[in-house]
Amino acid sequence: MATLSKNPYRGTRDFFPQDMRLRNHIFNKMSEVSEVYSYEPYDGPLLEEVALYLAKSGEELINEQIYSFMDRGERNVAIRPEMTPTVARMVAQIHREVPKPIRWYSIPNLMRYEKPQKGRLREFWQYNADIFGAGIHGEVEIIQLCVSILQGFGANNSHFAIHLNDRRIVDLIFKDLIKLDNEATHKLYKLVDRKNKMDPAKFSAEVMTITQDEAKAHLFEQYANLTSVEALKEFVSSQTEVNHDFFKFYENLKTIGLSEYLVYDPSVVRGLDYYTGIVFEIFDKHPDNRRAIAGGGAYANLLQIFNEQPLEGVGVGLGEVPLTEFLKAHNLLPDVAKAHIHFLVSYMDEETEPFATKLAYDLRSKGKKTELLFGTNKPKKVFSYSDKKDTESVIIIGKDEMEKNSFKVKNLKTKEETIYSYNDFISSL
Amino acid sequence: MATLSKNPYRGTRDFFPQDMRLRNHIFNKMSEVSEVYSYEPYDGPLLEEVALYLAKSGEELINEQIYSFMDRGERNVAIRPEMTPTVARMVAQIHREVPKPIRWYSIPNLMRYEKPQKGRLREFWQYNADIFGAGIHGEVEIIQLCVSILQGFGANNSHFAIHLNDRRIVDLIFKDLIKLDNEATHKLYKLVDRKNKMDPAKFSAEVMTITQDEAKAHLFEQYANLTSVEALKEFVSSQTEVNHDFFKFYENLKTIGLSEYLVYDPSVVRGLDYYTGIVFEIFDKHPDNRRAIAGGGAYANLLQIFNEQPLEGVGVGLGEVPLTEFLKAHNLLPDVAKAHIHFLVSYMDEETEPFATKLAYDLRSKGKKTELLFGTNKPKKVFSYSDKKDTESVIIIGKDEMEKNSFKVKNLKTKEETIYSYNDFISSL
Repeated sequence: MATLSKNPYRGTRDFFPQDMRLRNHIFNKMSEVSEVYSYEPYDGPLLEEVALYLAKSGEELINEQIYSFMDRGERNVAIRPEMTPTVARMVAQIHREVPKPIRWYSIPNLMRYEKPQKGRLREFWQYNADIFGAGIHGEVEIIQLCVSILQGFGANNSHFAIHLNDRRIVDLIFKDLIKLDNEATHKLYKLVDRKNKMDPAKFSAEVMTITQDEAKAHLFEQYANLTSVEALKEFVSSQTEVNHDFFKFYENLKTIGLSEYLVYDPSVVRGLDYYTGIVFEIFDKHPDNRRAIAGGGAYANLLQIFNEQPLEGVGVGLGEVPLTEFLKAHNLLPDVAKAHIHFLVSYMDEETEPFATKLAYDLRSKGKKTELLFGTNKPKKVFSYSDKKDTESVIIIGKDEMEKNSFKVKNLKTKEETIYSYNDFISSL
Repeated sequence: MATLSKNPYRGTRDFFPQDMRLRNHIFNKMSEVSEVYSYEPYDGPLLEEVALYLAKSGEELINEQIYSFMDRGERNVAIRPEMTPTVARMVAQIHREVPKPIRWYSIPNLMRYEKPQKGRLREFWQYNADIFGAGIHGEVEIIQLCVSILQGFGANNSHFAIHLNDRRIVDLIFKDLIKLDNEATHKLYKLVDRKNKMDPAKFSAEVMTITQDEAKAHLFEQYANLTSVEALKEFVSSQTEVNHDFFKFYENLKTIGLSEYLVYDPSVVRGLDYYTGIVFEIFDKHPDNRRAIAGGGAYANLLQIFNEQPLEGVGVGLGEVPLTEFLKAHNLLPDVAKAHIHFLVSYMDEETEPFATKLAYDLRSKGKKTELLFGTNKPKKVFSYSDKKDTESVIIIGKDEMEKNSFKVKNLKTKEETIYSYNDFISSL
């Protein structure tokens, strides 16, 4: 028999306890902040029929990145590569009966057939939050929610910035002002998305190739070089009369004190067809890690693929892999290398084992993380073992303790030792 | 275009918020109790190579129940149908370096290609806890942990019982006393496992068919009708000299006060080959739901498939589907139909919106679950909306409130109304 590999499948991870404590820290914070924003938790199946993804995302994602296969009943199914189609399917079932707005969040595991690299894996988790049926209020709230989650980890505007744009404005400029056809518009979308990674001369050359017109190319470059909402407003109003929701949205964010996080970024257009309103990406400001850690936007009709009445929404996706890189880069992760325990309980003799076992049980009943050290151990061994965990206090039970129904608690942080009667100590917890 | 189905894939579930709150309640309790027992969290990949499952479970599970497929790199992979092979793979990587015992728990989603029925689905979650390198102490602790988890949900010995047996004793009886070959032993395992669901006459007939010997059949039936550890001890010692660890294990459980939960059950043998010591199943006592909700046991060598030094362990698996049925049957689930919010904040005029938005933000910063009701609303509408959630208090902001920088908090449970100054209220939280 060939030796089995001990490694996880390519692009996936083993979460050993120290990794899992970090993951729990991150997921707990996401959930906690979502709950204080009154977002409700949901989840869907790991597998969906491929038809659902084809309807929403088109062939490209399906063909290149999806884990799909035929089940034994000849259904073409896929491991979920994203959560939005599932949300749409679920909301389509209940949207008529529930009060609006609907606020939902989830932290599903997703799989994509990617070439594994830094910040990109085949199996990953993604925080998703959406608000349906709330218009501009929802746009503001989703941005606020993102800021609160990142602040929850201790991050502030020295660590991240929110790059904003609006698909209605992009369309206004590309289609109404520059008057490009759909194909050229699509190419410009892709080009502007890559702008910040490109040489300026090459960028200009490609703009010319796509627009085939100097005036159009000039107008496009003017747009692409805008750096503030104020400049955008001036640019747009110099060309057309506009009283756009995006400017109101931006004013609202400023009013509630978020302006220090905001950047207008004409290169943020988001690839997916279904965004129709504001779009945004949250960027890490760390010089070694300048990448988007989250993205989202507003869409006019979540339920289009189900032929239902239009339901507008605003959503955000925040990947756990880039978020972890972000938190690491800024030293915002707690030290969870060792397991935390409140009490290490040990016993010196076989006769005192039941007494120590009962003590451990009673401490646990009070919610205290308690490890019972098995076997008879001398104090020296107990204290040496206690170092392997993040141990708060040690209790050693001998015959004397058992007879007197009391014991000494040694606090390892303060080095204090205190003798307690059994019942007093338990009832004090 | 054909209309897309709104239903989840067969045998999987959509978790709407009320379902998800229940799932979170269950998973949080499992985690909380595991942590107070000083078990550490872990997780592994969703996909493993099929070779891993073949090595551990053999052909049967693989051929009939597994979701497997070829990835684009020609690797034969499967969605995890159980967690033990992953645990073994992970422990094999680190067991030489970490202090023993190792205590781990996980709540993975698993998939099996089952015919969906009550208590059995294709996608389900399973709580797994294992302790490695702790001998008989580990056996006792795993049982204690199971009891504490179920007690954590409010269950007691009127709701469930732990059915115990020991593979060493079963082997002693089947192989040494009854002297059956491996094939007949295997058939008796399968038969005794079904005993409680069979007609006694049919059972006896099958015993005779397998043993082909009246004396052997009699001995086997004597064993199969044992109902207590005391009777087992008498039966075994009447046949052979024995001073078995199982009896010590049972005494230890009695000493720590668990005897009211324990039942000796000769039909509990557990199918999987890798159990070598104690085995147990936890049964629901509800007359309409008499089924196993958890099972586990001790095994001599977790790492066998990796050709590593033997590492003994004790483990338990507790499925979320049968557990939920159990908790429902005994009315032990909380009412989480409505989302709980501490504060519903609303505003009466457009000018007061920023004030209300800031108030909601400040309440959230204090960890209070706060919903901001969008749009200008009259009090009547606000209170009618508040009924749709499990709302604790309502705050309505008008111009008067904004000018005075104070507001009235209406507690919906006590019907009390109290006026607070903004800053006093926030700092009191």
